[in-house]
Amino acid sequence: MGAVMWLKNCWYVIAWEHEISSGEFLARTVIGEPLLVYRTSTGEFVALEDRCCHRHAPLSLGRREGDCIRCGYHGLMFNAKGACVEVPGLDRAPPSLNVRTYPVVAHNKWVFVWMGDPARADRNLLPDNFSNDHPDWHTRPGYIHYETPWLLICDNLLDFSHLSFVHEKTLGGSVLIAQTRPDIERIDGPGQRGLRISRRMSGLPAPSYYHRIRPLPETINRWFIYDFLFPATLLMNSGGRPVTDAEGDNRNAVLLHSCQTLTPETETSTHYFFQQSYRGEARDEAIVDGIHKSVILAFNEDRDMITAQYRNIRRDPQKPMAPLYMDAALMQFRRLLDEAVAAENATG
Amino acid sequence: MGAVMWLKNCWYVIAWEHEISSGEFLARTVIGEPLLVYRTSTGEFVALEDRCCHRHAPLSLGRREGDCIRCGYHGLMFNAKGACVEVPGLDRAPPSLNVRTYPVVAHNKWVFVWMGDPARADRNLLPDNFSNDHPDWHTRPGYIHYETPWLLICDNLLDFSHLSFVHEKTLGGSVLIAQTRPDIERIDGPGQRGLRISRRMSGLPAPSYYHRIRPLPETINRWFIYDFLFPATLLMNSGGRPVTDAEGDNRNAVLLHSCQTLTPETETSTHYFFQQSYRGEARDEAIVDGIHKSVILAFNEDRDMITAQYRNIRRDPQKPMAPLYMDAALMQFRRLLDEAVAAENATG
Amino acid sequence: MGAVMWLKNCWYVIAWEHEISSGEFLARTVIGEPLLVYRTSTGEFVALEDRCCHRHAPLSLGRREGDCIRCGYHGLMFNAKGACVEVPGLDRAPPSLNVRTYPVVAHNKWVFVWMGDPARADRNLLPDNFSNDHPDWHTRPGYIHYETPWLLICDNLLDFSHLSFVHEKTLGGSVLIAQTRPDIERIDGPGQRGLRISRRMSGLPAPSYYHRIRPLPETINRWFIYDFLFPATLLMNSGGRPVTDAEGDNRNAVLLHSCQTLTPETETSTHYFFQQSYRGEARDEAIVDGIHKSVILAFNEDRDMITAQYRNIRRDPQKPMAPLYMDAALMQFRRLLDEAVAAENATG
Repeated sequence: MGAVMWLKNCWYVIAWEHEISSGEFLARTVIGEPLLVYRTSTGEFVALEDRCCHRHAPLSLGRREGDCIRCGYHGLMFNAKGACVEVPGLDRAPPSLNVRTYPVVAHNKWVFVWMGDPARADRNLLPDNFSNDHPDWHTRPGYIHYETPWLLICDNLLDFSHLSFVHEKTLGGSVLIAQTRPDIERIDGPGQRGLRISRRMSGLPAPSYYHRIRPLPETINRWFIYDFLFPATLLMNSGGRPVTDAEGDNRNAVLLHSCQTLTPETETSTHYFFQQSYRGEARDEAIVDGIHKSVILAFNEDRDMITAQYRNIRRDPQKPMAPLYMDAALMQFRRLLDEAVAAENATG
Repeated sequence: MGAVMWLKNCWYVIAWEHEISSGEFLARTVIGEPLLVYRTSTGEFVALEDRCCHRHAPLSLGRREGDCIRCGYHGLMFNAKGACVEVPGLDRAPPSLNVRTYPVVAHNKWVFVWMGDPARADRNLLPDNFSNDHPDWHTRPGYIHYETPWLLICDNLLDFSHLSFVHEKTLGGSVLIAQTRPDIERIDGPGQRGLRISRRMSGLPAPSYYHRIRPLPETINRWFIYDFLFPATLLMNSGGRPVTDAEGDNRNAVLLHSCQTLTPETETSTHYFFQQSYRGEARDEAIVDGIHKSVILAFNEDRDMITAQYRNIRRDPQKPMAPLYMDAALMQFRRLLDEAVAAENATG
Repeated sequence: MGAVMWLKNCWYVIAWEHEISSGEFLARTVIGEPLLVYRTSTGEFVALEDRCCHRHAPLSLGRREGDCIRCGYHGLMFNAKGACVEVPGLDRAPPSLNVRTYPVVAHNKWVFVWMGDPARADRNLLPDNFSNDHPDWHTRPGYIHYETPWLLICDNLLDFSHLSFVHEKTLGGSVLIAQTRPDIERIDGPGQRGLRISRRMSGLPAPSYYHRIRPLPETINRWFIYDFLFPATLLMNSGGRPVTDAEGDNRNAVLLHSCQTLTPETETSTHYFFQQSYRGEARDEAIVDGIHKSVILAFNEDRDMITAQYRNIRRDPQKPMAPLYMDAALMQFRRLLDEAVAAENATG
């Protein structure tokens, strides 16, 4: 729990697109840096350091003037490129005065910021979070806040054996999930780095919220296939079908796609953006609502557990944990991340 | 207030017996270690480290399965000896997997845990807290929680001169208590270590709650005779009788026995278990209630004072205190304790 | 934000006089030291260290006995000179037992304490806070508490350009205030040290609360002339008159005098005592009330801004600020203060 080295050359989600309406600011902290996000009159997203270079007041306490932001303390005005364009009482603002800007893009309803070298910001590195915004997939955006370090939540998402216990009565429903070993593959493409985890279970009961999506027999086959990508984005196909149906036969299947991402706020707090969508010809608001409520309920179960775990860890941070086979993915991901952070700091 | 070295080879009270009903967990922290206490189907008490050896989740968030505890995070199951007996997905749990267990005994309604070397746990070292559970003594269990280090509360209990001031209107009632010097004897038996403190006062008014126990004349003789034993248990005979009655003549006397004990929760917080009983042929619920309320009222007076004292100490932890004659017992006890802790750490 | 070195040989305001009624204590912390202030039977103010020398309990939890204070923990009694005059159970208190006393004077409704060498306490160093208590000036006392270091509030008071932005709708009302450069003079008299700041603006609208004092034309001339004196006391003449009236012609002018002072409570919290009075032949309670409410509203605007600024500073305390021309006074004051603290620590 010492001073954290963050991965910086990557896209972190700072907001759902709907959180940033035109004319308004969103102020949110990412990896310890206070940011201000807004949209210009032409709809472009802008992310500025939320800290006036003069006396460090948050610019988010100031106001919009056109596409500029005027600090609410002493009136310095900054344009969307972060340059100071006005200092009250001076004919011309000193050219060196500016606040940092961050590359920012909206992509399938998520607004991403690039916290590292702007020259390396690359839209090709954005995750394929298509189901946030796709006509065949129906969903509702979710957000919760954690008062724990983000890596404990990464751990949780990298080992679904917890579904059998933490979510016994919600997302899980069978000890078979924990008993089934997933396949773990490394993803090391030019665009994405991380792990692909595949867990397929046969002949287990469906969780109750599946039944709200479509009729299913008592026991089903079920799968979770997901990529967990830098910095901490989970993209998952999951679902279930009757045990009598062949793999690939989706006529009677529940098909879900989930996009979830963790954004560290500080060393000890985390933003969690997520949605789980179902595939269907037409949107059924009752189903969307049922899935959303089940997911929120389950994510609160996770948060209760991880918050209590973190309390125990703080009591004795040096006490070693006992690694078990189900930790394979989370240990591999932590190692990949350590290497990536070390490489970033070595090359600048 | 640096890093505390705790006395470990001793019995700390973790709970009143009634707090641990069958089938339920009690989670409580003792000297910084999270513990889980429960009773097996045969009524035995079990104290386990409340931290799964796998990822440090509190076991108290899990569930009973027979006399075992299953962790609520990834489903590891531990038996009452702390051994891991099941890891979901493994045929056999690795034999090295276990959580720590602590010797635990119930004795006169208090449940004690032994925080040091289990081989040295010895029932002969339990204090004689008989009045918690005795047909001739009538009482009700009490508990309060302090947000202060336990030693400041030990100090308070080792110098009853504060009764004249902190408890002027409750337990005290006369400056004579402060003006009377107690006898202090060292207790260094094979079983118990600590101090015996005896304070006898003549011709002072009885505190108002004495009058609720039995009729007394306006002035009485009064006494407090107590042992203060490692780690921090007070066992006290106190009472009052008419000044005209000889010592030992209890026909018209109020006779009280009190068992109180401090259990450090963390370096800066403390559990306080206590009761004060009166001797009488039959239990009178109104008297029990009156004594209990008086004691609670008075202990809140102590807590207000000690909490404020601690606030001042934190402002300037290095500032020396001015020792006075009434600090004799508390200084002696602190020295005995320091020696005992040092000896424990020297010999292991 | 490291360990603060305080200026000690100066008068800090600890209270408004009316806060200390006869027979009562006021407990308040100044530059980290807990103090107790009360008035003797003859009306003299007394300031004692609010920490018994015995076990560090706050004396303010004790009680008055005549002009003495008896500690509520173990009954030590101290006189108004801080000497211990009684230890219960001792015939005579040890002569070395005492608590620190602080020179204290009331002056125009403010109660001042001298935190340094008592031999250097000098009434001639008191500020001229006359308008707190003057028949021609009408006002009401104010107090707010900050959870920020005092220097950030000094900064605020030393640069009134913020009035155009923080107080745009309250005390300010025109960007002309920020655009006008003040004169800054050093005050280095035998009695007072600090800065005199003069800002005069022509042809701007009056803030709305001026109109509640007297009828004014749409645009006025306006001025702020204030001394900012060690440790952190602002004494200000301000006001406005019709642009057609000559300087010095006060027949149609609004004339205000303000006394404000910051007293550090701890390194990260501050007491703020203030009033703003208007000059008038007779007191008009509605006007007094209107000014008071305007000032409170505006000072809450400051506090919101400075609290947010402090939050940003704590995120990255090493990050440099960009100095601008409007920081001239605050930088000069911080330098004077550093020099004064260094000198004090050099000479003792």
